[in-house]
Amino acid sequence: MRNIMIIIEYDGTNYGGWQKQKNTLSIQQVIEEAIYKITKKEVNLISSGRTDAGVHAIGQVANFITTSKIPIEKIPDAINSKLPNDISIIGSKEVAMDFHARYSARRKRYKYIILNSKYKRPINRNYSYHVKYDLDIDKMKNEIKYLIGEHDFKAFMSSGSSVQTTVRTIYDVSIEKQGDLIILEIEGNGFLYNMVRIIVGTLIDIGRGKISTSLKDIINSKDRNRAGYTSPACGLFLKKVYY
Amino acid sequence: MRNIMIIIEYDGTNYGGWQKQKNTLSIQQVIEEAIYKITKKEVNLISSGRTDAGVHAIGQVANFITTSKIPIEKIPDAINSKLPNDISIIGSKEVAMDFHARYSARRKRYKYIILNSKYKRPINRNYSYHVKYDLDIDKMKNEIKYLIGEHDFKAFMSSGSSVQTTVRTIYDVSIEKQGDLIILEIEGNGFLYNMVRIIVGTLIDIGRGKISTSLKDIINSKDRNRAGYTSPACGLFLKKVYY
Repeated sequence: MRNIMIIIEYDGTNYGGWQKQKNTLSIQQVIEEAIYKITKKEVNLISSGRTDAGVHAIGQVANFITTSKIPIEKIPDAINSKLPNDISIIGSKEVAMDFHARYSARRKRYKYIILNSKYKRPINRNYSYHVKYDLDIDKMKNEIKYLIGEHDFKAFMSSGSSVQTTVRTIYDVSIEKQGDLIILEIEGNGFLYNMVRIIVGTLIDIGRGKISTSLKDIINSKDRNRAGYTSPACGLFLKKVYY
Repeated sequence: MRNIMIIIEYDGTNYGGWQKQKNTLSIQQVIEEAIYKITKKEVNLISSGRTDAGVHAIGQVANFITTSKIPIEKIPDAINSKLPNDISIIGSKEVAMDFHARYSARRKRYKYIILNSKYKRPINRNYSYHVKYDLDIDKMKNEIKYLIGEHDFKAFMSSGSSVQTTVRTIYDVSIEKQGDLIILEIEGNGFLYNMVRIIVGTLIDIGRGKISTSLKDIINSKDRNRAGYTSPACGLFLKKVYY
């Protein structure tokens, strides 16, 4: 028995998210079927965490147990030969049997891309969220510092998820302007349901002057109604998982 | 009568190219139909030049004559309201009646994006050309200087086009590595049929050691068989047209 870790990039546009489910195609299902085709054995692919419908990944991590003898360095090409163009295995590693892509994860890093332009731009339209309003980037940059550290992020969680605690630690967050793009990156020990997308929606509302409350006060309120809207999935990328 | 110049961005993936033709959808046709919907008059949209099937643009320029009284600054939003997501008008200007998007053009700038990575990458897969071989970027950078100036670029023209002369002037060319991407930009007074894509294919063959002849000698040979292959359309962008 071998425990194989794979790193995955995917375009989430045409999927119902990572997790296997009825009535919609999931990334998990497509990769499990590709692995079946090359190993002839059913596998249970464990990821670092589900991503929602439409969310992308450039560094999702997953693992599966197999008796296959395919050399580890051949794993990506072998699986990729059975995958559609919007999913790709971009790395592989043989890991200890107790490695678990979800439970062993220590940190995750997400990226969110806002296209801040007067008119919509066709190129990369599936990989960014178009905001046509003027955004005060300095104001947004000034606010994000309140996210750093251990906080109760209850105000930034969509309902419909059950978690033991809404306390999470953010280690790093940045906002950078590159031409028409505004790129947010955020790293933490874990994220609540829709947390990154609600943080982004709140920052956009702050940047365009629709919300005048500081992020600090919104965090302290623990009230979802004080935060902004949930920005769309198409701008969000799971960038890296740390073990 | 007014002469309206528009700047256009498009994702060429799902089109048979710029020019109107039977049996395939063209970008020209889609925009002309959108203009018809807002002005109720048929127009003849003249572009700076056709782009081939699958080629993108981030700064295509076109003009049309109209009696419409729509204020010039409202033109992009008006046309965009009738366009699909993969085409967008990103600028507009009222120009003199003798302005002609093709004949008045003085220079054009193209961009070509190579994704140079071991494995295919789903994100941006429609906006780059994947090359998995190791490429010697320094060698490629060293060769491009021979493109600068006035040359007979006959070796870099696909058959099937009739032109009076194959002499063109290149004003600027650069190759830059940004992570996994290799970005070539080239500016000239005009380009032969498939010229940029053959230059890129030749540079890739030079970069991976398949062609050992210098670009200088290939240009001088005026022989298409000495140059490399025609790289695919998906990596090519018409970036800017100068008037």
